[in-house]
This record gives sequence, C-alpha cells and structure tokens, in this order.
Amino acid sequence: LRKGFPEVIFGQGKTSGQIIEIMEKIIIHEDIVLVTRLEKEKAQKISSKIQGTQYFEDAKLMWFKKNEPKITGFGQILVITAGTSDIPVAKEALLTAHAMGNEVKSIFDVGVAGIHRLFAHQEQIMTAAVIIVVAGMEGALPSVVAGMVKAPVIAVPTSIGYGTSFGGMTALLGMLNSCSSNIAVVNIDNGFGAGFMASSINHVSVA
Amino acid sequence: LRKGFPEVIFGQGKTSGQIIEIMEKIIIHEDIVLVTRLEKEKAQKISSKIQGTQYFEDAKLMWFKKNEPKITGFGQILVITAGTSDIPVAKEALLTAHAMGNEVKSIFDVGVAGIHRLFAHQEQIMTAAVIIVVAGMEGALPSVVAGMVKAPVIAVPTSIGYGTSFGGMTALLGMLNSCSSNIAVVNIDNGFGAGFMASSINHVSVA
Amino acid sequence: LRKGFPEVIFGQGKTSGQIIEIMEKIIIHEDIVLVTRLEKEKAQKISSKIQGTQYFEDAKLMWFKKNEPKITGFGQILVITAGTSDIPVAKEALLTAHAMGNEVKSIFDVGVAGIHRLFAHQEQIMTAAVIIVVAGMEGALPSVVAGMVKAPVIAVPTSIGYGTSFGGMTALLGMLNSCSSNIAVVNIDNGFGAGFMASSINHVSVA
Amino acid sequence: LRKGFPEVIFGQGKTSGQIIEIMEKIIIHEDIVLVTRLEKEKAQKISSKIQGTQYFEDAKLMWFKKNEPKITGFGQILVITAGTSDIPVAKEALLTAHAMGNEVKSIFDVGVAGIHRLFAHQEQIMTAAVIIVVAGMEGALPSVVAGMVKAPVIAVPTSIGYGTSFGGMTALLGMLNSCSSNIAVVNIDNGFGAGFMASSINHVSVA
Amino acid sequence: LRKGFPEVIFGQGKTSGQIIEIMEKIIIHEDIVLVTRLEKEKAQKISSKIQGTQYFEDAKLMWFKKNEPKITGFGQILVITAGTSDIPVAKEALLTAHAMGNEVKSIFDVGVAGIHRLFAHQEQIMTAAVIIVVAGMEGALPSVVAGMVKAPVIAVPTSIGYGTSFGGMTALLGMLNSCSSNIAVVNIDNGFGAGFMASSINHVSVA
Amino acid sequence: LRKGFPEVIFGQGKTSGQIIEIMEKIIIHEDIVLVTRLEKEKAQKISSKIQGTQYFEDAKLMWFKKNEPKITGFGQILVITAGTSDIPVAKEALLTAHAMGNEVKSIFDVGVAGIHRLFAHQEQIMTAAVIIVVAGMEGALPSVVAGMVKAPVIAVPTSIGYGTSFGGMTALLGMLNSCSSNIAVVNIDNGFGAGFMASSINHVSVA
Amino acid sequence: LRKGFPEVIFGQGKTSGQIIEIMEKIIIHEDIVLVTRLEKEKAQKISSKIQGTQYFEDAKLMWFKKNEPKITGFGQILVITAGTSDIPVAKEALLTAHAMGNEVKSIFDVGVAGIHRLFAHQEQIMTAAVIIVVAGMEGALPSVVAGMVKAPVIAVPTSIGYGTSFGGMTALLGMLNSCSSNIAVVNIDNGFGAGFMASSINHVSVA
Amino acid sequence: LRKGFPEVIFGQGKTSGQIIEIMEKIIIHEDIVLVTRLEKEKAQKISSKIQGTQYFEDAKLMWFKKNEPKITGFGQILVITAGTSDIPVAKEALLTAHAMGNEVKSIFDVGVAGIHRLFAHQEQIMTAAVIIVVAGMEGALPSVVAGMVKAPVIAVPTSIGYGTSFGGMTALLGMLNSCSSNIAVVNIDNGFGAGFMASSINHVSVA
Ligand SMILES: Nc1ncnc2c1ncn2[C@@H]1O[C@H](COP(=O)(O)O)[C@@H](O)[C@H]1O
Ligand SMILES: Nc1ncnc2c1ncn2[C@@H]1O[C@H](COP(=O)(O)O)[C@@H](O)[C@H]1O
Ligand SMILES: Nc1ncnc2c1ncn2[C@@H]1O[C@H](COP(=O)(O)O)[C@@H](O)[C@H]1O
Ligand SMILES: Nc1ncnc2c1ncn2[C@@H]1O[C@H](COP(=O)(O)O)[C@@H](O)[C@H]1O
Ligand SMILES: [Mg+2]
Ligand SMILES: [Mg+2]
Ligand SMILES: [Mg+2]
Ligand SMILES: [Mg+2]
Ligand SMILES: [Mg+2]
Ligand SMILES: [Mg+2]
Ligand SMILES: [Mg+2]
Ligand SMILES: [Mg+2]
Repeated sequence: LRKGFPEVIFGQGKTSGQIIEIMEKIIIHEDIVLVTRLEKEKAQKISSKIQGTQYFEDAKLMWFKKNEPKITGFGQILVITAGTSDIPVAKEALLTAHAMGNEVKSIFDVGVAGIHRLFAHQEQIMTAAVIIVVAGMEGALPSVVAGMVKAPVIAVPTSIGYGTSFGGMTALLGMLNSCSSNIAVVNIDNGFGAGFMASSINHVSVA
Repeated sequence: LRKGFPEVIFGQGKTSGQIIEIMEKIIIHEDIVLVTRLEKEKAQKISSKIQGTQYFEDAKLMWFKKNEPKITGFGQILVITAGTSDIPVAKEALLTAHAMGNEVKSIFDVGVAGIHRLFAHQEQIMTAAVIIVVAGMEGALPSVVAGMVKAPVIAVPTSIGYGTSFGGMTALLGMLNSCSSNIAVVNIDNGFGAGFMASSINHVSVA
Repeated sequence: LRKGFPEVIFGQGKTSGQIIEIMEKIIIHEDIVLVTRLEKEKAQKISSKIQGTQYFEDAKLMWFKKNEPKITGFGQILVITAGTSDIPVAKEALLTAHAMGNEVKSIFDVGVAGIHRLFAHQEQIMTAAVIIVVAGMEGALPSVVAGMVKAPVIAVPTSIGYGTSFGGMTALLGMLNSCSSNIAVVNIDNGFGAGFMASSINHVSVA
Repeated sequence: LRKGFPEVIFGQGKTSGQIIEIMEKIIIHEDIVLVTRLEKEKAQKISSKIQGTQYFEDAKLMWFKKNEPKITGFGQILVITAGTSDIPVAKEALLTAHAMGNEVKSIFDVGVAGIHRLFAHQEQIMTAAVIIVVAGMEGALPSVVAGMVKAPVIAVPTSIGYGTSFGGMTALLGMLNSCSSNIAVVNIDNGFGAGFMASSINHVSVA
Repeated sequence: LRKGFPEVIFGQGKTSGQIIEIMEKIIIHEDIVLVTRLEKEKAQKISSKIQGTQYFEDAKLMWFKKNEPKITGFGQILVITAGTSDIPVAKEALLTAHAMGNEVKSIFDVGVAGIHRLFAHQEQIMTAAVIIVVAGMEGALPSVVAGMVKAPVIAVPTSIGYGTSFGGMTALLGMLNSCSSNIAVVNIDNGFGAGFMASSINHVSVA
Repeated sequence: LRKGFPEVIFGQGKTSGQIIEIMEKIIIHEDIVLVTRLEKEKAQKISSKIQGTQYFEDAKLMWFKKNEPKITGFGQILVITAGTSDIPVAKEALLTAHAMGNEVKSIFDVGVAGIHRLFAHQEQIMTAAVIIVVAGMEGALPSVVAGMVKAPVIAVPTSIGYGTSFGGMTALLGMLNSCSSNIAVVNIDNGFGAGFMASSINHVSVA
Repeated sequence: LRKGFPEVIFGQGKTSGQIIEIMEKIIIHEDIVLVTRLEKEKAQKISSKIQGTQYFEDAKLMWFKKNEPKITGFGQILVITAGTSDIPVAKEALLTAHAMGNEVKSIFDVGVAGIHRLFAHQEQIMTAAVIIVVAGMEGALPSVVAGMVKAPVIAVPTSIGYGTSFGGMTALLGMLNSCSSNIAVVNIDNGFGAGFMASSINHVSVA
Repeated sequence: LRKGFPEVIFGQGKTSGQIIEIMEKIIIHEDIVLVTRLEKEKAQKISSKIQGTQYFEDAKLMWFKKNEPKITGFGQILVITAGTSDIPVAKEALLTAHAMGNEVKSIFDVGVAGIHRLFAHQEQIMTAAVIIVVAGMEGALPSVVAGMVKAPVIAVPTSIGYGTSFGGMTALLGMLNSCSSNIAVVNIDNGFGAGFMASSINHVSVA
C-alpha cells in the first residue's frame, strides 16, 4: 500500500452509477472513502445504495466511514478564509484534513481590507502547526498570514470575484508572487488538495 | 489653455535632438516642463543645450523650471512603496506631484510580509489627503492601506518580480481586484500618471 | 469607525438568507446599507423580510435607508456612458455615489464613433468635480473626456461587446494605456467601486 | 503575372547576401522592388552592390526603382498618426502606397488626448479616398477618424507604449472592437501591409 | 448627415421594447434600418409592432425597408466561406452589403483541406471588386484567396471550432499574420462590419 | 537499450565543457551522437577536443559519427517550408531524420500566398511516405499539404513573424486547428522533434 | 479520389436535417461514413431516416457502414488513457481507427500518480505499432509512455480538470514540451484526429 | 523576533552598494544572512568589503555566516531535478534549506522520459521527510515522485525549455494540475522559496 491513507474518488464527470461501482469494490478493504466534487443529486443516489455515507453539500464532499478517523497528526491545522464566499472551499479542506487524522480549526471572513479582524485572532494563528489560507479576488491574505508565523502556509486561490479575477487566476498569481517565503500554492478551488497536503505536512514527524 | 499645467514630453522613443527641438518651442511660454522616461545619456545631451534643467536618474525624469512650483493643492500627497525596488517608480510620482503644486511625503519598504512596519506609520497615513501605493510582485499593499483610510488611493503596479509576476501584470490584476473600494489603478510602472492623477484629485476643491 | 460610511454587502454568491441575517445585525447601528450584485429574486425575498429597502433592477443594487443621504461632497459627480448597454453599470455608480452623500448627474450614449454627441455636452463636462466614464468595446471614451478637462476621471470598462472584447479586457487595457493622464481605472463592470472612489475623491477637502 | 505589382522582399531574418541574390534575379524583369524590415547595415551592403536603390532609415524600407511609379490609384491616401513615435510605421505605409502608384498625404501627432488637434484637419480628412490611421497605446484614434468619414479606414496598431500596452496588443484589440464600422485592421507595426491594402482599395475601380 | 447610409442598431443587450422605441424615432426619416445580433423572440415582438420589417434567422439580422436599396457600389462583392458552419456570419455580411447598395455574390464551403473546390471558382473570384472571406478553425482561407487576386480581401474570423480554436482567436491571429498583403481583418463573427467595410471600399470611386 | 537509436544531447543551457564530458562517455558505445541547439562558439570548442564531429551552423546541430547511418526506414521523408526563413528549422529536421536512417528530400519556400508554387511539386509530394511541413506566421501550409495526400504530416510551427505572430504561437494554433486530419504538431521551432517523430513513423513497419 | 478513405461529417453546429441531406448524397458511393461530435437527439433523428447507422453515445460518434471495415493497417493501434474521465475521447479515437481499417486495443486509467498501474501493461505497450495517449489535467502520461517505446505516440489532451487546467490547455502545453521525442500532438479533445493520424501512420508501408 | 531565522536579502535590482549598506546593519545581530539572485560582479564587490561571505555562482546565492548552521529540522530534505539544466535552481533550494538548519540530499537528471533512472533511487526517495522536485519543460516529474511517497512534495517549475514552454509557465501549470495530491507549488525558478518552505515543513514538529 502506497499511502496508508483513505481512498479518494474524483466525483466530477463520473455518473452516480460509476461511483457506486467503484465504492462497492473499495469499501471491502478501506475504512474511509472520500468522494470529492460531487453534486447533490448524485450524492442522494449513492446514499440510497451505500450505507455509512455522509454528504456535505457546500463542500460537495461525501465520505464513507466505518469508524471515526484517529488523530495521528502532530499539531493543529488551521483553515482561514478571506471572505464568506470562500467558505465552501475551506470546508472541503477541513473535511479532508479531518478524515486524514488531523485536529482542525477555522477562522472565516478576515480579509485584508479590514486587517484588524485578522489580528484579533493572532494567538490562535501563532499556535497552529500548519495553516491553510483560502482567498479569491486579489488573494493577498496568505502573504499577510505567512508574514506573522513560522509555520508552513498552504495558499488556496478561489474562483470568487468577477471581471479581471479571471476565475481565480488573479488570486493564484498573487499567491505565487508572495513576498513571504513560507508559502506554497495549490490549484484554484482545490480545497481537497490543500487539506491533503496540510495533512501530509502535519505527519512529517510521524513515520 | 486646456489644463493650466506643466507641459509633459514622453521621452521614450524620441531622440535627444527631437526632445530639444520640442523643448525650445515650449519653454518660451511655459514655466515648468517635464520629460519622462528619459535615459541618462539623452538627458546629458539635453542639459548641455538647455539651461535650467534638472535630471533625476532613478526616476528617469527631467524637469525644466523657471521658478519653484507654488503649492496649490488642498492637502498632502503621500507615496508608499512595498519594497526598495519600487522606489524609482515612486520617485517619478513624487516629482510629478511636486511639479504640479502639491506638498508630497513618502514612506518606503513597508510591504505586507512584515505588516507591523506599515502600522508604525499609521498616523501619517491617516492624515494624507491622497495616497499613492507602489508595489510589485503580488501587489497586495494598496488593499491593506486603503482599508485603513477614507482617502482615495492610487495603486501603481511595478514590473518588479520574476517568473509569474509577468512584468507587473500580477500586481496590476491584484490591485484591480482589491476588496477595498477607495482604490483606482494606473498602468504598470506609470509613476508619472499616478502623480498626475493624485494632483488632479488634490485640486478638486481648487477651482 | 474606520470610514464613517454606509456599510456595503457584496451580494453575489450569498443566499438571501445569509444577506438577511447580515442586514439584521447591521441596520441596528447603520443609517444606510447597500447590497450590490443582487439578483431580482433574492431582492424580493429580502424586501419581504426587511422594511425600508429599495431595489434597482438594472443596477442590481438594493439600499436600505433610514433617512435620505445628506450631500457632503464638494462638487458634482458626472457619470458618462459610451453606449446604452453601459447604462446598468453607470447606474450602479450613480446610486453608490448618491448614497455616499454626493450630487450626481449623467450623460448617456455619447461614444467616440459620433464624437459630436459628446461635444454637445461640453459645458456640463467642464463643470463637474469628478467624472466617471463607463465604456465597453474599445474603451476609448475616457481618453477623450479626460483630454477635455482638469478634473480626475475614473474609467470603468464594461463587458459589453463580443469576440475580441474578451468580456471587457480590451476596454480595460485601452483605459490603462490612455494617453491622457488624469485617469485611473477600476475593475470590469465595477460601477460600485467607481462610485465609491469618486465619492472618496469628492470628499478630499471635507475632513 | 498575378498582381502587376512591385515585387516585395521581407528583409527580416535574411542576410544581405541572400537579399542581393534575390534582387539580382528580380530586377531583370521588375521596375520597382521593395525590401521591408531592413536594418541599416544590411541596407548599406546592398546599396554598394546594386545601383538604383534608396533607403529610408526610419521606415526600415529600401526601394529599387527604374522609373518613378505612375499614379494609377483613384484618389488620395491619407496617413494619420496619433503620436510622433508612430511615424516610422506611418512612413512605411506611405512609401509602400506611393510605390504602388498612389497619391499620398500625411497628418502626424493628432492623438485623442487633445482631440482639437485632429479637428483642425477636418477638411483634408473628409476628402481622402482611403485613410490609414496608425496608433499605439490605447489605439483609439481610428474609431474617432472613422466616425468622421464615409471612406474606408485601415487601422494599424503600433508597439509604442509600455506595461499593459503589450507590444501593441492593446491597440490592436481596441481597433478590432471599434464602435465605428468602416474599419479593418492589420498586424501590429505592419505599415507595409496597410499601405498595400490601401492601394488595393484605391484601385478597386481601376480594372 | 455624416454617412448618407442606413441606420444600424446593435441589437445585443437591448430589450425588444428599447429597440422598438429607437426604431419608431428613426424610421420617420430613414429609408432603411438594420438591427444586428437580434434573437428570434425579440424579432417577433418587433415585427408585430412595426410594419415593413423582415428577419433573417441564421444571420440574426432584421431590416426595415421603405424601398429596395439602389445599387450604387462600383463592382461585385463576393463572400466566400471555408465551411458550412461559417454561413450565418457570411449571410450577415451579404445582407449588410446588399442593404448598403451593392451587388453581392457568394461561394460557400471551399476550405483549404480540399483546395481544388476553391479553384473550381477561380473565374468568379478573379472578377469580384471586393472579397469577404469568412473562416473559423485555422483561418487559412483568406491567405490563399488573397494570393489569387489583386482585389482587397476582408477577412472575418468565426468562433467555429473547439479546444484551441479559442472562440475564433486562432482564426483571427492566422488572418493578421497572413503572408498575403491585400488583406485586413475585422472582429470575430463580425459579418456586419465586414459587409459595411466592403461596401465602403466598393464606394471609394463613388463620391 | 530502449530505443536502438543515436543518443541526443540538448545543447541549450549546457557549457561546452559539460557537453564534452557527456560526449566522451557516450561515444565509447555509440555510433552516432547528435547535439541540438548548439551555438557556433561552443561547437568550435567541442570540435577541437573530439574527433569525428561535424557542425551545421544554420541548423545549430552537431553530429558525431563513426560510420554513415544505414537507411533502415520504409520510404522517403519529405520536408517542406513555407518561407526561406523557416529553412534552419527544416534543416534540423532533415539532419535528424537522416541520422536516424531515413532517405530525406526537401522543398523550400512554397507558402500559401502563391499556392501555384506548391502545386508545381505535386508529384514529389504524393510519393513521400512521411511529410514534415515547417511554417511560421499564419501556419496555413500544413493544412493545404495534408489535404493533398494520404501520408501522415508532422507540422512544425516556427517563431518567424512579428507582432501577433507571438513567437510562433499563432502558427502553432493554426496547425492544431487544421481542418485536415492526417496532421499532428510538435513544439515551436522543434525541427529535431519533427525529424525524430517522422523517423519513428517511417520505421513503423520495420520491427 | 484523394484519400480512399471513409467520408467524415463534422456534426457540431449542423442540424440533423443538414446532416441527413449530406449523408443521403454520400452513401450512394461510400461504404463507410462517420459523423463526429453528434448529440444524442440529433443521432436519433438521423437513425430514424437512414438505415445502417450505429451511434456511440459516449464518443458522440455515429457511423454508417455497408460492410465491416477490412483490416489493412500494418500493426496494432493501442489507445491508453490517464483517467476514467478521458475514456469518451479515447473511444472516439478507437472507433475512428477501427473504421479506417486498423486493429485496435485499449488500456484505461493508468495515470502517472500511480505509475505501477502503467508498468503492469508493459508488454502490450511494447508491441503496439502506434500508440495514442489520452490525458487531461497535467498531461504527463504521453511523456512516460513515449519514453518506454520506439513506436510513434500521438498525444491527445482532454478538457478534463478544473481551475488552471484551462479546458485542456495545460495538458496540451505539457505534451508539446515533452522531453520524449517520439511524440506529436493534436487539438484538445480531438479523439477523431488522433485516430485518423494513427491510422495514416499505420498505413505508411501500405501503399 | 518573528521567525528566528537567517535574514534574507533579495539581490535582484539592488546595487552592490545598497546590499553592502543593508548587510552592514544586519550582521551586527544576525548569525547567518543570505543574498539571493545576486550577479557575480556584485558578489565580488560585496566580498571585498564584507568578511565571512561565500558565493555560489550557479545558484546566484551568497551567504554570510558566523558559524555553521545547526541541524534542527526533523528529517532529510531531498532535492530532485528532471534535467541537468534545472540544477542551478535546485542548488538555490539546497543551500537555503541547509542554511536554515536541515540535512539535505540531492538526485539530479532523472526526468520522466527515462523513468527507470528515477526508480533506481526509490529507497532514498522513500526515506526523505520532505521532497523538492525541480523541473522545466512539461513539469511532469513531481506528479510521478509524489505518487511514490507519503511525504509532502514541493514542486518548483523552471524556465528551462523553448517555444511553448513559455518561460516556465507550462511546467507551473502542469504542477498545479497534478493528479497526485501531496504537492504544492512555488513560483517559477523560485529555488529559494522551495528551500524555505521545505525547511518550514521540516520544523513543524520542532516548536
Ligand atoms: N477534488 C480533487 N482535486 C484534485 N485531485 C483530486 C480531487 N479528488 C480526488 N483527486 C485525486 O484523484 C484521484 C482519483 O481519481 P479517479 O481515479 O479519477 O477517481 C485520487 O487519488 C486523488 O488523488
Ligand atoms: N511616462 C508617461 N506615461 C504615460 N503618459 C505619459 C508619460 N509621459 C508623458 N505622458 C503623456 O504623453 C503626452 C505627451 O506625449 P508626446 O506628445 O509623445 O510627448 C503628455 O501630454 C502626457 O500626458
Ligand atoms: N453587429 C455589430 N458589430 C459591431 N458594431 C455594430 C454592430 N451592429 C451595429 N454596430 C454599430 O453600433 C452602432 C449602434 O450602436 P447602438 O447605438 O448601441 O445601437 C452602429 O452605428 C454601428 O456602427
Ligand atoms: N532540440 C530539442 N528539442 C527537444 N528535445 C530535445 C532536443 N534535443 C534533445 N532533446 C531531448 O533531450 C534529451 C536529452 O536531454 P539532456 O539529457 O538534457 O541532454 C534527449 O533524449 C532528447 O530526447
Ligand atoms: Mg468579508
Ligand atoms: Mg522590503
Ligand atoms: Mg450608441
Ligand atoms: Mg503627442
Ligand atoms: Mg466543408
Ligand atoms: Mg517566400
Ligand atoms: Mg484514476
Ligand atoms: Mg537528461
């Protein structure tokens, strides 16, 4: 076994029938299975066939669990969003990291246009082991957060915005050009990848 | 006369001979003339022909002045930069605004990766009438500054950076997508335009 | 209080339920609240729950007002459009500027392909304190208007056009490269930001 | 013979040796030969080998002529530029059109930021058969000119500008999205193509 | 009157109500009115209110005519398409040119992958005064046609294709980089502009 | 051994020292070694150290050969160029294909603006087993050639052109959107890859 | 007859009526006809009019056959996909190659994130005459496959992915920049073109 | 002190004079100082003024050290490159990580076109705590490596390549769209950022 980790199915572009078929094979030998980018309607069809699933509509994520995931990660993973519209992506990250055996926390809607809102949470930010920052539009929040801590920061651009936000490209570019250095970036709206990477980091010392 | 304002020559792509010819016509009836985007060598040739010029190498700007410009603008124009590499563009803005009759101040190298450096200047920032913020890379500083004040902010993206900074395009896009609203943007590296626009704003109440 | 200004809610991507919840908290201590980028259906649900709102369908803007905004700005804000299709964005700017305490005027459909239509309004244009110019397609109108006045011009690109108009990108680029200098630019279709920035400018001398 | 027209050699990327070899073959049976995009140094080498050539440094164009071209086109071709930096491209167009048998005229430096300069030439503009408008930066001039006349307008974007002028792309896009309709566009800096197309138009009635 | 030409209304983004209002004003003093980019449903509402209109569904064009347009243009305007999917754009060009007083002809589906189909029409191609070539995908046809004739060619890129056709951008770029020189280009899918420009050219000798 | 084929060193970005070191290891057990994208100066240094090399300046290619390559490919590989400026890329393809054991032929400067030049070679074109078509600017030639034959065509875009040729991107896009179907494309200026792929195709039946 | 090959109709953007009309003409003298990019509804209308058709819903491809295609190609064409979502494009390639007289095989869902899945098929991969590799997202699989074999590889990027996959552009660019050399690329989602080109290659030795 | 970490100076765009001035202030209270993106000539001037510096030419990095950095990180940081041309960026990462207190190892030139070279190092790859993968061209290597391990992978695109490699953009996009999930990405050629982020990860469990 390569990763010793919950199996993940990429739900987008698969029919509920296809997903059910894959799940039925997997759940024989897996404790936890995630399905990402899953529309509500497909989720309902799957739930009616497979016992033990739970669906999170805003995160578009389903999980199947035989038991609760055991906390095996080193410290706390903190997920921060710039706006309220970034919350679905943040939830996808939170659920993924939780399923992978991490303690998770969140702070929502603390974007840079009112930076005092961010500073109100300074203590919690300083104590996290790994931080995920989710932001659309200009994508400036990860730079500011990373400037406040020693911990590694995973930046997730979102497609929130209009006009020249170019579906998240502007936020992505901002994050790649951050003048802070403890930052790395994942694909636009990729909450799943951010949660996965954060968990991978949080298990570095856990061989 | 349309603007009652110093005449400006766009130096880029003109020979020193062409610029001298234009200046000789203009200085008969103008008190102040600016030449922007002017290389050092051309500046030297012009200075040797026309008396009363002064050249600012880092800003690549020359001015010709019969008298000191009179302060006619309403309040103070403050120019802030994120990094030290943004200073030449900031200087072009400062000199332009000064030549147009404004009191000017500056704060350099207070980028978002160490945001406490910015907050140390909070009082000066709060009292400016108009603020110009110059930043390259992710271009996040104007959002943060605009979130601190009621004054209008002119954001100037610079071509500082590498890789996906795309010669200033990333900074520009970040500024256009700012989640603060008292912001408008000028072309990449356009310190001249920012100074001009700031002066125009600072003279709104000065018919 | 940072800005002494009406609170604004970005309506896009929020449910009517979320917006009602936010508004109910805010209107306790605010006189004026704006909701921007609000679809008609959501507006109707909000109106049925909260008294004192008014909805402007073409501008996709709702406001809640306890009293009429007091005129506190220095001069007149003039909003000009190139075509009739640019009017919704112009209205968003007009309503925003009005809500922020400014006297507002407008001139619609005076694009550069028939430039005599613009010149017919020369007097009104010359007397405005701040001008907002809204244009799609090639976005040339702000350059021409700015060349006629000393006042600051806020240029707003719109997504009107087809083919290589690229959803407003062509107009935006044209405005950023204007050969007039008393111009700064906001995001595509960002009437709200233009109105806000214009108001901020119109209050420069009003501490 | 397909075109009954002077032969043209694209000089860019060819050595002077290669060009001389081609010319020596052609001039046996051709009255006029053009070489475009030709660097000064190569031009000098060619001139020293082939008699009857003339080189125009700013237009980077050489011609070889046995006799003066006869005027065969219907009316006048007028070439207008927005700025002084656009003149080299304009000259390439002028020389090409002249070599192809057209009467040519020009008006330089009448860009839209000071539109009264353009209107001073209204009469000459109204009488041209075909108009070529050359502009960089925002590329707005062709729209305004086309709005003044019934004649066809060939718009030539130039690479003049900086930052988001993107080497002429912004001007090109502006021209393609013109709200005037008697306009068509050629490649960036393609003065030769504009002169050629204008001549082709000016010979429509000359079978 | 600037153009002595039929009035044109850009239908896209206007309601049928708005268009009816504009038409009712215009038709008092105009003989011919065109409405472009008009959806079928809007067309039906307009027809039921205004007498004398005719709607062309594939071209999305409506005209209102008091009399048949008189043929005033010099020669024949020929419209050629590469594929059958390009025909709607070609029809918009044909109808526009016809309404402006030109004799029009067409050849459809003669793209470069089977170039013999094009050559079968060589005689008709050689006798046209002005040629419009409409092509999507790689946009190669205008180059080949222009290489066969002395007449001016207006190239119209269409949004036909998928993947890297980028909604017509690939065809547009191909046309701008044509190695033929008697070519100029209009916006993607802009059949109207092509017809208008071709008519303008065809009237060069008709003062 | 994976490919039973001459070893190839990518010369760009390597010093002559590094290349010599690699070659000295390889030539012990290899009969033929190619070095691509090699500047003249580096080539000279290498030649002075290693016996048996030959350098082709326009193709920027060096080979080291113990014996002449044996012809093992099935048929003839024909390389066609649109212009004379495309010849260096064509030569890189020719030399590569030759070194890999193929009979090679070429036809240069037969672009689509004068399509009769192409048809003059119809017979030779029809008999080739594999065809490589090299073209810059609008990149239309491969479509026309592929439309004439049953053989597979490898299209190579070149960076020849200016303005919107975008360093070969326009040609590349044109080729990817070809309306002929017996075409596949390689990277811009990648003559080496085209020659390699053509050889691979020409050996399909040679197990 | 140029190609001695089944006639192909590009179904996208044509009505079922238009397609029926074209087919009725063709099937008189053709044994096999393909219709690509055909929606289910249109397919049903066509089937009800024309006998002998068969429709493949996931590949969006219809064929009309008088007899089974005879195997005329030299070896086996193998189609490999990176994910399950790439299968429809792969099927379009398989059906096209089969219709053109080739023996075809497939291996699905062997992407690079679990590269052992690919190696399990090494033997089958080594024996194919031509390989088509279909992949979305980062498009890395063709490089790896091409590195394992001497056979020519046709790479097909798919539009599978989200965010910066840019509708297949990222996969396309990856394939064009492959560090393997026995690769050439077709347009995004162009399974048909890949199958056609592979067949063309597989018939190189079959005059 | 925010980070308890060596101070870093971004050398690009600063004069040696400016850098010396900054260094002289810092070294009073810092044990280690890095200067990144530093040209050789500037490095020599700095070395002649400041004692205790060391310059790494290929990595364009200088450090000033009072003592050797103490190893404080949890495990080993492994840096892998696809090609030899990627080595300078890899070295920048290695030196940065080393200076920050980590044990570092490297494997060079194991790109995906010959994937067996990578697998030869499987054991070393499996035991690393954090992996940095540096690749240009198609950027596929990080996906393959991440698929082999549980450790977090930092992917660094390089500007190595030509044509459509777009200065590293293709590699960057490939990495962002990786079908492996334990990956995050930094800016093009940003070896420094990768080393810094890897160190930050390697210290997660080291409060
Ligand atoms: N939302 C997502 N974004 C990116 N990758 C994902 C996502 N969800 C699943 N994956 C990856 O896709 C793989 C499964 O793909 P598939 O076999 O198509 O279901 C998993 O191993 C994950 O690494
Ligand atoms: N650096 C600059 N950036 C943008 N516009 C400029 C700059 N310098 C001068 N200009 C404008 O260019 C005009 C002069 O252009 P020119 O006639 O070519 O010298 C002035 O009126 C300014 O508005
Ligand atoms: N399809 C079209 N594409 C580009 N421009 C058009 C089109 N239709 C009309 N126009 C132009 O738009 C102008 C009318 O715009 P409007 O006043 O918005 O109806 C006309 O004078 C035409 O020049
Ligand atoms: N001009 C070229 N363009 C693309 N790939 C090349 C080129 N020259 C060599 N290669 C490939 O690069 C590999 C060698 O790279 P390297 O180990 O860096 O010398 C060879 O196996 C070739 O497949
Ligand atoms: Mg918020
Ligand atoms: Mg700094
Ligand atoms: Mg109008
Ligand atoms: Mg000027
Ligand atoms: Mg056809
Ligand atoms: Mg040629
Ligand atoms: Mg899979
Ligand atoms: Mg290598």
